[in-house]
Amino acid sequence: MEPWTIILPAAGSGLRFGGDVPKQYRHLRGISLISYSVRTALSMPEVGHVIIAINPEHRAMCEHALSSQHLQSDRVLIVEGGTERQQSIHAALQHAVISDSSLVFVHDAVRPFATFDLYRRVGLAAMEHGAAIPGLAVRDTIKSVFDGGIVEATLPRSVLRAVQTPQCFRAGVLRSAYAHAAELGITATDDASLVEAIGIPVLCVEGDERNIKVTTPLDLLIAEAFLAV
Amino acid sequence: MEPWTIILPAAGSGLRFGGDVPKQYRHLRGISLISYSVRTALSMPEVGHVIIAINPEHRAMCEHALSSQHLQSDRVLIVEGGTERQQSIHAALQHAVISDSSLVFVHDAVRPFATFDLYRRVGLAAMEHGAAIPGLAVRDTIKSVFDGGIVEATLPRSVLRAVQTPQCFRAGVLRSAYAHAAELGITATDDASLVEAIGIPVLCVEGDERNIKVTTPLDLLIAEAFLAV
Repeated sequence: MEPWTIILPAAGSGLRFGGDVPKQYRHLRGISLISYSVRTALSMPEVGHVIIAINPEHRAMCEHALSSQHLQSDRVLIVEGGTERQQSIHAALQHAVISDSSLVFVHDAVRPFATFDLYRRVGLAAMEHGAAIPGLAVRDTIKSVFDGGIVEATLPRSVLRAVQTPQCFRAGVLRSAYAHAAELGITATDDASLVEAIGIPVLCVEGDERNIKVTTPLDLLIAEAFLAV
Repeated sequence: MEPWTIILPAAGSGLRFGGDVPKQYRHLRGISLISYSVRTALSMPEVGHVIIAINPEHRAMCEHALSSQHLQSDRVLIVEGGTERQQSIHAALQHAVISDSSLVFVHDAVRPFATFDLYRRVGLAAMEHGAAIPGLAVRDTIKSVFDGGIVEATLPRSVLRAVQTPQCFRAGVLRSAYAHAAELGITATDDASLVEAIGIPVLCVEGDERNIKVTTPLDLLIAEAFLAV
């Protein structure tokens, strides 16, 4: 099996938290959020490289986050990202020295609780299908609204999935999707959308309810509660 | 202003928690979940009656939950609900002695953190529009999937709302919606859907991110974390 590549887009300024520390460097139990993701990635023998796409202004912060957790490794590559998440992933892909058939995972740097099991579940599905993502059944009723807030429709909940990361793709698939998106100026909230746009089926496998995205102080409180048990 | 009526459907067996205590009677800091909702409702001077629709087998459990928190009141009415949430609300509506123009709120018994502010925001909007619900912008990417899990589409996130309770309606609107649903055998995951089905516009106002639905042990952990700060 070819080694896996993990891309962590981490160039955002993450202002939603307030303060001047980008959210991927905020601490959870004294450890920066990004370090959780890097540690998990490095712990998996399947992983060849972790490519972190950062804002160059944050290089010292990123290096400190890694070194303080003994996560400096020649398996970790820090590259310059873009102003948007999608640009960062595109930049990281340029640095990946891999064949089209090897697996690339894209993971939010601020999801500290992705497990080996989750990576493997998504990775196995992507090996078979070319593209796989984790998703959870949606618990809330989801509606679409018009401008002004009047409800347009109530969506059929049973077919909806709240999508997480890591999302996994054969490198050739992801590269084609990014090239196509760049050419047509397509932007999306996740990578699978860009793959869907080139007509390649994406398989949604079971996500993990603990695999939360930590983007607000309330999320940090929840993450701390998870660590306490 | 006519007094408000709050309906709490609480007849479910709530097996998702495991154990044999229905989820609305599970304890959070030693207080049953339903008691939080009743306490908030009784604290609002606008509220005339709180109607709790229960499984008759749980009557002693419900009465104990209330009495242990000194929430017995002639403003609280315990009525027999049905096997489905929708039947319970329909049953509760039969017991409400109110005019068509007065406001009825339907609230999940297992959302302990609904605030006065939220009730008032939704209530004011319903007074003006006839029907109003709280909703939050959706943070995850939401996709629809086919049977088997292949992604069908990625939904346009900016127009989506994750809907909460309390949902509020003019009594006449809600009664018409329930009569229509009963006649046509329509079932839905929320009350607003039944109102939408009779062609009455529903306004979605800003929800509250702390107003979570506590249906799993993980939710209970999160709820405890919220109480700790």
